[in-house]
Amino acid sequence: MIRVGIVGASGYTGGELLRLLALHPSVQVTVATSREFTGKPISYVHINLRRYYPDLKFTNVEIDALTSRCDLVFINTPPGISQKITPNLIESGLKIVDLSPDFRLKNIEEYRRWYQMDHEAVDLLSKAVYGLPEIHRDEIKNAELIACPGCNSTASILALTPLIESNIIDKAHIIIDVKAGSSEAGRKPNLGSHHPERANAMRPYSVEGHRHVAEILQELSLLSKEEIRIMFVPHAVGAVRGALATCYTWLTQDDVDENMLRRIYAKRYGREPFVRIVGEGLFKYPDPVNVVGSNYADVKATQYEKKGVIAFCAIDNLIKGAAGQAIQCMNILLKIDEKTGLEAPPLRPI
Amino acid sequence: MIRVGIVGASGYTGGELLRLLALHPSVQVTVATSREFTGKPISYVHINLRRYYPDLKFTNVEIDALTSRCDLVFINTPPGISQKITPNLIESGLKIVDLSPDFRLKNIEEYRRWYQMDHEAVDLLSKAVYGLPEIHRDEIKNAELIACPGCNSTASILALTPLIESNIIDKAHIIIDVKAGSSEAGRKPNLGSHHPERANAMRPYSVEGHRHVAEILQELSLLSKEEIRIMFVPHAVGAVRGALATCYTWLTQDDVDENMLRRIYAKRYGREPFVRIVGEGLFKYPDPVNVVGSNYADVKATQYEKKGVIAFCAIDNLIKGAAGQAIQCMNILLKIDEKTGLEAPPLRPI
Amino acid sequence: MIRVGIVGASGYTGGELLRLLALHPSVQVTVATSREFTGKPISYVHINLRRYYPDLKFTNVEIDALTSRCDLVFINTPPGISQKITPNLIESGLKIVDLSPDFRLKNIEEYRRWYQMDHEAVDLLSKAVYGLPEIHRDEIKNAELIACPGCNSTASILALTPLIESNIIDKAHIIIDVKAGSSEAGRKPNLGSHHPERANAMRPYSVEGHRHVAEILQELSLLSKEEIRIMFVPHAVGAVRGALATCYTWLTQDDVDENMLRRIYAKRYGREPFVRIVGEGLFKYPDPVNVVGSNYADVKATQYEKKGVIAFCAIDNLIKGAAGQAIQCMNILLKIDEKTGLEAPPLRPI
Amino acid sequence: MIRVGIVGASGYTGGELLRLLALHPSVQVTVATSREFTGKPISYVHINLRRYYPDLKFTNVEIDALTSRCDLVFINTPPGISQKITPNLIESGLKIVDLSPDFRLKNIEEYRRWYQMDHEAVDLLSKAVYGLPEIHRDEIKNAELIACPGCNSTASILALTPLIESNIIDKAHIIIDVKAGSSEAGRKPNLGSHHPERANAMRPYSVEGHRHVAEILQELSLLSKEEIRIMFVPHAVGAVRGALATCYTWLTQDDVDENMLRRIYAKRYGREPFVRIVGEGLFKYPDPVNVVGSNYADVKATQYEKKGVIAFCAIDNLIKGAAGQAIQCMNILLKIDEKTGLEAPPLRPI
Repeated sequence: MIRVGIVGASGYTGGELLRLLALHPSVQVTVATSREFTGKPISYVHINLRRYYPDLKFTNVEIDALTSRCDLVFINTPPGISQKITPNLIESGLKIVDLSPDFRLKNIEEYRRWYQMDHEAVDLLSKAVYGLPEIHRDEIKNAELIACPGCNSTASILALTPLIESNIIDKAHIIIDVKAGSSEAGRKPNLGSHHPERANAMRPYSVEGHRHVAEILQELSLLSKEEIRIMFVPHAVGAVRGALATCYTWLTQDDVDENMLRRIYAKRYGREPFVRIVGEGLFKYPDPVNVVGSNYADVKATQYEKKGVIAFCAIDNLIKGAAGQAIQCMNILLKIDEKTGLEAPPLRPI
Repeated sequence: MIRVGIVGASGYTGGELLRLLALHPSVQVTVATSREFTGKPISYVHINLRRYYPDLKFTNVEIDALTSRCDLVFINTPPGISQKITPNLIESGLKIVDLSPDFRLKNIEEYRRWYQMDHEAVDLLSKAVYGLPEIHRDEIKNAELIACPGCNSTASILALTPLIESNIIDKAHIIIDVKAGSSEAGRKPNLGSHHPERANAMRPYSVEGHRHVAEILQELSLLSKEEIRIMFVPHAVGAVRGALATCYTWLTQDDVDENMLRRIYAKRYGREPFVRIVGEGLFKYPDPVNVVGSNYADVKATQYEKKGVIAFCAIDNLIKGAAGQAIQCMNILLKIDEKTGLEAPPLRPI
Repeated sequence: MIRVGIVGASGYTGGELLRLLALHPSVQVTVATSREFTGKPISYVHINLRRYYPDLKFTNVEIDALTSRCDLVFINTPPGISQKITPNLIESGLKIVDLSPDFRLKNIEEYRRWYQMDHEAVDLLSKAVYGLPEIHRDEIKNAELIACPGCNSTASILALTPLIESNIIDKAHIIIDVKAGSSEAGRKPNLGSHHPERANAMRPYSVEGHRHVAEILQELSLLSKEEIRIMFVPHAVGAVRGALATCYTWLTQDDVDENMLRRIYAKRYGREPFVRIVGEGLFKYPDPVNVVGSNYADVKATQYEKKGVIAFCAIDNLIKGAAGQAIQCMNILLKIDEKTGLEAPPLRPI
Repeated sequence: MIRVGIVGASGYTGGELLRLLALHPSVQVTVATSREFTGKPISYVHINLRRYYPDLKFTNVEIDALTSRCDLVFINTPPGISQKITPNLIESGLKIVDLSPDFRLKNIEEYRRWYQMDHEAVDLLSKAVYGLPEIHRDEIKNAELIACPGCNSTASILALTPLIESNIIDKAHIIIDVKAGSSEAGRKPNLGSHHPERANAMRPYSVEGHRHVAEILQELSLLSKEEIRIMFVPHAVGAVRGALATCYTWLTQDDVDENMLRRIYAKRYGREPFVRIVGEGLFKYPDPVNVVGSNYADVKATQYEKKGVIAFCAIDNLIKGAAGQAIQCMNILLKIDEKTGLEAPPLRPI
């Protein structure tokens, strides 16, 4: 059994890691940290997990405890913290699956610009692998440090990758309009997530520039020789879980039709264990309600009149957008079946 | 024009007072206080009110400003504050419509027990009139100080009053099960009202004793010679606005039937401007979605088998449960048409 | 008093017309039709309106009754019906405010293409005025037949008009991403609006072509010499009321900045009674939760990096997107204050 | 592998059976019937299940197909259908787990009264075991025909059983106030579940008598020598999943305190695999949001002042209230671990 630690285990993503790992056959959670709830049992915070971790209590972050009791650590902290503790953990031989943004951006200036702080572990940036298996699976296999994507980034990149790679779109004019559920902002109360303010909202936010833009550009640029330019606006809507990326762009070729789009997506994602291409059915486009509770990303692209193309991707922001994808990366790293612990179908209706 | 001040104007109830008074033909809001937003225009907080109060800004609470610029003051503060400022305002000749709980309870020991603090204006308690027009209309007419009911209390008392007064129920065994929307807890974020925690909740709270129990018992006891005993449990459900009281009790007489219940309610409330008795229609029982945005209370009582009786009351917790009822009291006090400024029908669907 | 009829009065838009007209000082509703609920009182269906129309019952559509008892008729029917009854009503000298799509499109081929039926009143098309006061106020004043815009169209056109008119954007590349509440689809149950399917949805629909595209293009083209091209995708989200249009395009001039955008919108809409430009406040972008219950459209445009521009418009789909705008048009037609009956501020929180 | 058929597989409960059985190690679904969707693949309706049943299509109900291809059949139909097909299936040696109400009531008169039809398989009633494992586990082990409880019944009976069995309450005065999510009413659209009507509802329904009352009384009466009398009112609230029963009654003994209540529940349910007693934590009472996605029932009882007692039970109405409990019964019948296929923790937040 692989011994696993979770730094930052009392939030929503921490809760999802605990939930998904509870039944994972190859790992055992040995450490779960929380400043706020140190000493409390897991189910004090994660009431749903009552009976699953009868003996585990939240502890403070202690490097020694992590290195002595864990083989692998999920880091799930606000920006600026992982860069401080990850170097020590790596040095002690632990594998790190980082869900924070600290090691996502290769360009240190970009990190400074978007997170407005210095980076204290610059030398690790080259080692870090961006944890999107659909793009970096081979590198993840041998990584020491995996930097898992943000949820908006996961949806956006998965929607657009086949279009970028197949080189059929105008890469300088890409619109990404995201709709996202309230769990995205975490467990800490704030006005924007206060129920009376949020329940019926359709509210643009971070219009002046969302941090996920940096990693979306970085990753899409890897797939293309030309410069990528996007406009990206997330919108807070009234669901708890789920994120939908609606991506609009224009075709640069005249011979594209629906069949070709289908083939491009089918070829790109046909073997992916967690990407499903949406086709026939009572509802015909990706919608998070069809993936909530699972690690799936549902995708589809469609032509709009002759020149336009629209690509959609729907995920559960806490699973494929966070904890599930982190476990998928861990499975790849551990060389076990990538779907281990992630087989459960989505819960519907929700 | 009556000059009106609102102490505590940046919260949800404050916002509703401002919204409803914006079009009220007999009053003008001259002072609106907020510690947090002093100096900001009204629409900075109450974005919906953009254009309605172009010249009004939030100020700090200053007794002098209130006494010099107001004829009547709505007080809308947490427990313990009104008892400190109201005496000065009354002394200066202002009328007070208090939406806080400070002057609701006649029994000082009850106040101490439920609010766990001393009361510094005990002598005003006898002057204070409980601001439920359906029960205390005549006293409100001449009051200096009106203590408006809590929202749960309003719904519970209006549901039960005809049953108590007609003396047909077992007053020692009354159950009040309340369902309430999230706006009830105010504009300040907290975990229970955090959208991901609240959106789909059906969550009992204050089971060990909700403060509104004290005023419900006080008021129902005025209507009865016998002792009233209730069990009262509010439940947080996933709406923003609305409160429904479902009240269960048993008949003490054998000759009661549906017709008699209808007559009792029709007789009691037939002339009330804001109590509607629910009858035929696509939906046949009170439901807050039929009153949201208005000052109406929808009520109905029905027999359950031979011995049981269930009384329902649905209100908009921020209007008939707070700001609207306060304005209704003000209208009565000002001797103008009780419906002034409150004529708008409910908004549906919502 | 103007005598008003409502053809199609039992749906949500019909309910809103009845709600808003209940307090309108210059009109009286004399006829309200409903096939399904003929003979039932208004409040049987519109439970919120109990007490407002005590003597009015739903009737069948009868031209004679309409012509003898009405001066003006709101028509609120599915496509294909207004074109059949409107000619008779106009001939009898009635004014028509049509909320159906039958007279919105000037081009008969476009009507046939989008609504897949012939048009039986082609000669009236030239008389019909598109009922968006912000663009056609002068024509509305003297119209016999007003064809009110769809809700998505209202939001989209109001968001984009200043950008089109000021000629600073690339009109061939405009994206309109709409989020809309469930009331948009009307009162008739269907799978897409079934609560378990809809509550948490973020669901693209009519991606292959939404009917409102035709009228958006028609109207925006009036404002521009160049061809307008749009991609338009509406998304069903989990609110009941509200529509938000997020419009993305690119600047064709280098000297545009935030100040210039603000000036353009302020100049265009500064005197509009129902368009508010969103600026400072706790939330800084248009969101339907700030306009629900009112006839306001909240708009804002902002630069995205150097070349992009994003324009937002939030409305209550049943009010500014339907019933409220129809009444605004009626007021203009009747030469009374345009705000009559529409003064109520938005309801918030909702 | 046990071969399993599902009669009525396209609704929500059918979908949950398919979802939960997809990963069940001991069974294989061989038949899934649906009149409406005959010939369509499973994922056409249950979009969440794309990839899980690649070769299974909906078929019509055919007794021969069921008897030749199944060892056990879940029946999931409206009242009146199971009584017609179950006799044939039993005769052919199949085991039946019936989620419809046809075999729940032992008293044929009660069936006629509540379902207003005759029963054509009266002789099977004595064989049928009420499928609530917490009460009838031993009989389920050897049953041929299991009649699974309704969702409200499950929550109500589990909440009250320890109080009834311990003989400490006034059994003639029990109130059950249920709050329930919209999935309870199934996948077929209707006005009450239409999103705009339901999203913010707090709506009492079936006040005149809900069918589940009959089975609740039947089952609670088995536990008591005295007559049980209940008032039962379900309320539609704005969640998709979940049911909460709040049960109020009075103590008949003076020596009961919180500790004793805790002991009574702990003793009764301590070994139950799917009943959890709620204690400490961020939220201290049962709430469906803590069990959604799982087969758990969260329960708690608390004293109200000296004489009252309130018992709560929260379940996922589609799982412990339907499909999950049916599978739990199947596991017991198959003599495999009762938790097989049902181990997944609840999904939270939801």
